[in-house]
Amino acid sequence: MTNALKQKWQAGESGLGAWLAIPNSWVAEAVSRLGFDYVCVDLQHGMIDYPDATELILAIHAAGSTPIVRVPSNDLGAINRVLDAGALGIIVPLIESVADVEAAVQACRYPPAGRRSYGPNRAALVAGPNYFETANEKVLCIPMIETRAALDAVEDLAAIPGVDALYVGPNDLSLSLGLPPGADNPDPYQAAYRRIAKACTDAGIVAGIHANAELCAKHRATGYRMVTISTDASALVRGVAADLEKARSAR
Amino acid sequence: MTNALKQKWQAGESGLGAWLAIPNSWVAEAVSRLGFDYVCVDLQHGMIDYPDATELILAIHAAGSTPIVRVPSNDLGAINRVLDAGALGIIVPLIESVADVEAAVQACRYPPAGRRSYGPNRAALVAGPNYFETANEKVLCIPMIETRAALDAVEDLAAIPGVDALYVGPNDLSLSLGLPPGADNPDPYQAAYRRIAKACTDAGIVAGIHANAELCAKHRATGYRMVTISTDASALVRGVAADLEKARSAR
Amino acid sequence: MTNALKQKWQAGESGLGAWLAIPNSWVAEAVSRLGFDYVCVDLQHGMIDYPDATELILAIHAAGSTPIVRVPSNDLGAINRVLDAGALGIIVPLIESVADVEAAVQACRYPPAGRRSYGPNRAALVAGPNYFETANEKVLCIPMIETRAALDAVEDLAAIPGVDALYVGPNDLSLSLGLPPGADNPDPYQAAYRRIAKACTDAGIVAGIHANAELCAKHRATGYRMVTISTDASALVRGVAADLEKARSAR
Amino acid sequence: MTNALKQKWQAGESGLGAWLAIPNSWVAEAVSRLGFDYVCVDLQHGMIDYPDATELILAIHAAGSTPIVRVPSNDLGAINRVLDAGALGIIVPLIESVADVEAAVQACRYPPAGRRSYGPNRAALVAGPNYFETANEKVLCIPMIETRAALDAVEDLAAIPGVDALYVGPNDLSLSLGLPPGADNPDPYQAAYRRIAKACTDAGIVAGIHANAELCAKHRATGYRMVTISTDASALVRGVAADLEKARSAR
Amino acid sequence: MTNALKQKWQAGESGLGAWLAIPNSWVAEAVSRLGFDYVCVDLQHGMIDYPDATELILAIHAAGSTPIVRVPSNDLGAINRVLDAGALGIIVPLIESVADVEAAVQACRYPPAGRRSYGPNRAALVAGPNYFETANEKVLCIPMIETRAALDAVEDLAAIPGVDALYVGPNDLSLSLGLPPGADNPDPYQAAYRRIAKACTDAGIVAGIHANAELCAKHRATGYRMVTISTDASALVRGVAADLEKARSAR
Amino acid sequence: MTNALKQKWQAGESGLGAWLAIPNSWVAEAVSRLGFDYVCVDLQHGMIDYPDATELILAIHAAGSTPIVRVPSNDLGAINRVLDAGALGIIVPLIESVADVEAAVQACRYPPAGRRSYGPNRAALVAGPNYFETANEKVLCIPMIETRAALDAVEDLAAIPGVDALYVGPNDLSLSLGLPPGADNPDPYQAAYRRIAKACTDAGIVAGIHANAELCAKHRATGYRMVTISTDASALVRGVAADLEKARSAR
Repeated sequence: MTNALKQKWQAGESGLGAWLAIPNSWVAEAVSRLGFDYVCVDLQHGMIDYPDATELILAIHAAGSTPIVRVPSNDLGAINRVLDAGALGIIVPLIESVADVEAAVQACRYPPAGRRSYGPNRAALVAGPNYFETANEKVLCIPMIETRAALDAVEDLAAIPGVDALYVGPNDLSLSLGLPPGADNPDPYQAAYRRIAKACTDAGIVAGIHANAELCAKHRATGYRMVTISTDASALVRGVAADLEKARSAR
Repeated sequence: MTNALKQKWQAGESGLGAWLAIPNSWVAEAVSRLGFDYVCVDLQHGMIDYPDATELILAIHAAGSTPIVRVPSNDLGAINRVLDAGALGIIVPLIESVADVEAAVQACRYPPAGRRSYGPNRAALVAGPNYFETANEKVLCIPMIETRAALDAVEDLAAIPGVDALYVGPNDLSLSLGLPPGADNPDPYQAAYRRIAKACTDAGIVAGIHANAELCAKHRATGYRMVTISTDASALVRGVAADLEKARSAR
Repeated sequence: MTNALKQKWQAGESGLGAWLAIPNSWVAEAVSRLGFDYVCVDLQHGMIDYPDATELILAIHAAGSTPIVRVPSNDLGAINRVLDAGALGIIVPLIESVADVEAAVQACRYPPAGRRSYGPNRAALVAGPNYFETANEKVLCIPMIETRAALDAVEDLAAIPGVDALYVGPNDLSLSLGLPPGADNPDPYQAAYRRIAKACTDAGIVAGIHANAELCAKHRATGYRMVTISTDASALVRGVAADLEKARSAR
Repeated sequence: MTNALKQKWQAGESGLGAWLAIPNSWVAEAVSRLGFDYVCVDLQHGMIDYPDATELILAIHAAGSTPIVRVPSNDLGAINRVLDAGALGIIVPLIESVADVEAAVQACRYPPAGRRSYGPNRAALVAGPNYFETANEKVLCIPMIETRAALDAVEDLAAIPGVDALYVGPNDLSLSLGLPPGADNPDPYQAAYRRIAKACTDAGIVAGIHANAELCAKHRATGYRMVTISTDASALVRGVAADLEKARSAR
Repeated sequence: MTNALKQKWQAGESGLGAWLAIPNSWVAEAVSRLGFDYVCVDLQHGMIDYPDATELILAIHAAGSTPIVRVPSNDLGAINRVLDAGALGIIVPLIESVADVEAAVQACRYPPAGRRSYGPNRAALVAGPNYFETANEKVLCIPMIETRAALDAVEDLAAIPGVDALYVGPNDLSLSLGLPPGADNPDPYQAAYRRIAKACTDAGIVAGIHANAELCAKHRATGYRMVTISTDASALVRGVAADLEKARSAR
Repeated sequence: MTNALKQKWQAGESGLGAWLAIPNSWVAEAVSRLGFDYVCVDLQHGMIDYPDATELILAIHAAGSTPIVRVPSNDLGAINRVLDAGALGIIVPLIESVADVEAAVQACRYPPAGRRSYGPNRAALVAGPNYFETANEKVLCIPMIETRAALDAVEDLAAIPGVDALYVGPNDLSLSLGLPPGADNPDPYQAAYRRIAKACTDAGIVAGIHANAELCAKHRATGYRMVTISTDASALVRGVAADLEKARSAR
């Protein structure tokens, strides 16, 4: 069980990702087979719970992509369960402080580096008996920057050992800054967006962001090396709506 | 519980439909809210089983569309279960003969018109205590024409009392005619395609066809008044693939 | 694994039963603990599929009652699966002929008496290694009389070896006789109802009927020794509706 | 997506509610169609988890009632997930302090008013693109008063901005006061019960209580304008038990 | 998507298989990773239904083994659904005649060779756009010989075009021959067992058998080249029972 | 609903247990029927979530063993839900302090002894109307000792009222002590292992440990009276692997 996303990052490359909100392993496999560097199972705002997540992680693995999970909250038990299931990265929402990030890192690392509990049911199945020895290195810990408090401390957060990337949530960060939800709001969002990229680059970690295909080039140019550019549920609705529009206009 | 699709047909209008292969009620509701005249839950080639189908039928209802179900085979028990759950139409695959169509019709109708068994758990919930009196009229019976045998007898099949529409399965019909799978193959498929439309029109029933947005105008011009123009799973994969292509080309 | 219902019948006694349409093991256990002689899992008109049925059968067992299953149709595979799961009786709907009943009996009996396939995953778990030796005796085969054809042949059907009881479906039998759905319709239903009871008594088997609490005494007096007197879903709705009525009237 | 319950409250009227402990969407729809002002999905003591809750919320919506959810604990992630699914109110158990209530309120409100994270998958589907603008007003936040600490601070809790109602849990409040479980225990419960109603009225918010049909009139007279008067699971068991009693007594 | 099992058979080699009765994808993946040539999902006597089967087929694929499915009965719809999900072989129980085998073969082959319906949702995902062209060759059709009627016609059945192997069900074959259930009963079972192997060899197809580790060598020596030697559920119970025995004896 | 495990402990006897990681009620029932004093449903590292846990608890009950649950974390809501479902003991992982143990005890006890919330849906079903009166005595609270902090305070933790046993997690305790994962590591693990046993014995509570069959005798001799000696998932894989090894070596 290698972590191809981490290898890319270590080689200075970027990764493009897809986002899953639908709890269906066919969808997970179909999306993953398209060639994304990572595919993220969203347990926070997606319609997915732990049992389904285990199936999706397997499907992403089977399709040759790197499975990432966004947990509903910064909870040791919740993070450990999806790591046991084979997730190779954890996105942690609603970070507010250094203590939050440290807790997130500890949840992703076995002692003595952290507090992860040992019982890697599927992870060890895939990785084999030496899973323990390499797990701390292979699992990516990715706190989100989406609150004003996190933004204010972003340089400190980026410097915390064990953090592999920081991931921008544009909607929540916008709300926290007094703006409406949006993928690419004007200032003060733009300033925050550049500050986070710089903080990551300066700290030698990866800057990540929740985005869409249109914004990808801008994000890459700004220094973001982890860009989520498509979500299953919205692609589905957009696609079906476009089909309906096309059919109607052809009448 | 009215059947808005049937009302449209009775008014001489056409209906556009969507197809569901993913067992998720959010998807069903999201698609149905787009404004399709019917949304079909596919238990034959979709990834959906009976328990999920009951949730999808509810979601389609909630979103104001007409729920149709394609059953895996021409089986009385299977047809009755989804009718009990509130399906307002049944698409029956792989019809071969007059006897097949008569069996399908009987499965959709209470005695003495048919052999449907009484126990409309959700259907009666929605329609109220007088469900029995109107069920035989409200439920659409839609056999598929997708084998050579069915094609050869299509005029007879269209004339069988209780048939509301015949539905073309282009892939299977193509295979049966010695062609590869395809949505709009050349002859002998084209001849069959026109013959089915004419048989339906002559018999005073609706011609239906499994299609896509591009083919909709052609089908409508040929006389098809029930055209399925989008499928959740393929719209999803097409959309995500297009996003990935766009993101990559913008690098 | 004894079949307490069969023992009661052998002792000349009657059995009262409950009916399950809701796929939830708490409901199954709660109902079964009330003291019914049998509890029937309805896979035909209930909202229950095979995986849920296995949980309900376990719950009924755990609560000390006898688990019966109504299958969606007279299908060897479907009958065998729920017998494997530990069902101690099978109610088979929509019987039309002697051949139908013989097929139902054969599906409930191991060779050479029948055609049941061997693989009693949970049944053997409960009954132990000698399950095979006693299974044919312990499993009750209960065809339904609910079509005119079955009624016309009821004396012949009752005499078929291996039949333990015949079970009246009042709604479907009414429809088949040209009446509306009903639990206790007037003639010709009443004559049919008495004829079936007599045919069973004459053949030395049990007469059963789908009913409610109000009709129980009448059915018992008529000779029915298997009377289903309550259904989970309707008891629930009646109870909640009565609560609402009470609360509103007290305003 | 209007919140009819809130509209009633704003008009000075009361709301009667039902309670769901069974994870089945048919039950949810059947109960909701009876005409309750709200129907609450209980994730704390009910047998329901998040995936089932999403189906029940949809069913309640489909049936025209207002979906409320009781979460297992005062957890931001858990509250956000059911709000995303379309819940229009949140009942939060085991409140102990002003800080607890403030956290509950913040979990129900988007920034800057609160800390709710943006990602309203089904809520936005139902409400449309302007969901964000009205969500904070439409979602009801309903902390429970069921501990001695909460009771002691009830006037302060009722005055916290963003609280729409306080909801009494008679069993837990009784235990906390040294009494056995009970729906309407004597003093000190009665004094607490009146104090809570008065605190709510004085603060201009709604007093709510978990009850049954018998107690409804008393609660209304005491000033409670949110009264839960029936629970699916207990109505089911009471109904089936009554049927069995009736059938046995008629022998 | 290659069929490694078929390739082995074509090379004259044998295949060892495992059997799954437990509906859990971790189990499927863990077993498949051990190195079996095929892993069979049992929908007849296993505790597995279609939705779970789709997850297990994916897990078997992910682990690098060849997924086979035993269907509950010789039903076109049921066979097509698991083939759509990516099964690379179908074991069909309770064959009685040439017509039965021909129906099984037709269910596994697209027209004009057979009657399989086109809609390979996951199969095409794995195999790519040319799935149709190679599917008929890649999917193994494996009827069971486990009734006296099938035994009597075994030479004819083995010669039917499209049959890849015949698979002995020792328990059911024993029952059909008047013997108790057993994995290796004495005559007349032994004679039947040898006759089936010879019929397959003579017809140039593979002889398969449901077995255990102890019997494997004997079966191989008799000419069986498809031997199932372990089942998840029984291995689990044997293992836990052995642990308990060991712990108790060490007291 | 008696707690046979507690009765054994009160009689000075030991209990042998099994561990469930697979979410399948057949597995739970099959394992429980082997005669274990307790069977533990693992929600932390097992592949089991709350809805499945309710089925497994029922299955363990049905098979006559005592159902225990390990929760994912020391969370009041999570502990209450499985107690409501009928668990008779709770194993709480990752204890660090006296405050942690006190919180665990309070989550297992109704007021005034603790903070458990009242709503025992299945527990009351099994135990009857007087469940409340005996619940606090019947439910076992079993904190885990698997961190260095807990080890350092083990004598204090063992003395906290309401603790019935302390349960050693050898893997996590080893990691916390700077050792690799292991069931019976050398010092400093051995010293810790003996210290915990002595602390429990001195405090008059039970010492428990996660183990295997080989280590059972040693643990018993050291004073451990709660020894888990088998896990479903590992027994399964070991058994199937042994079958494959046997079959291959016999070629």
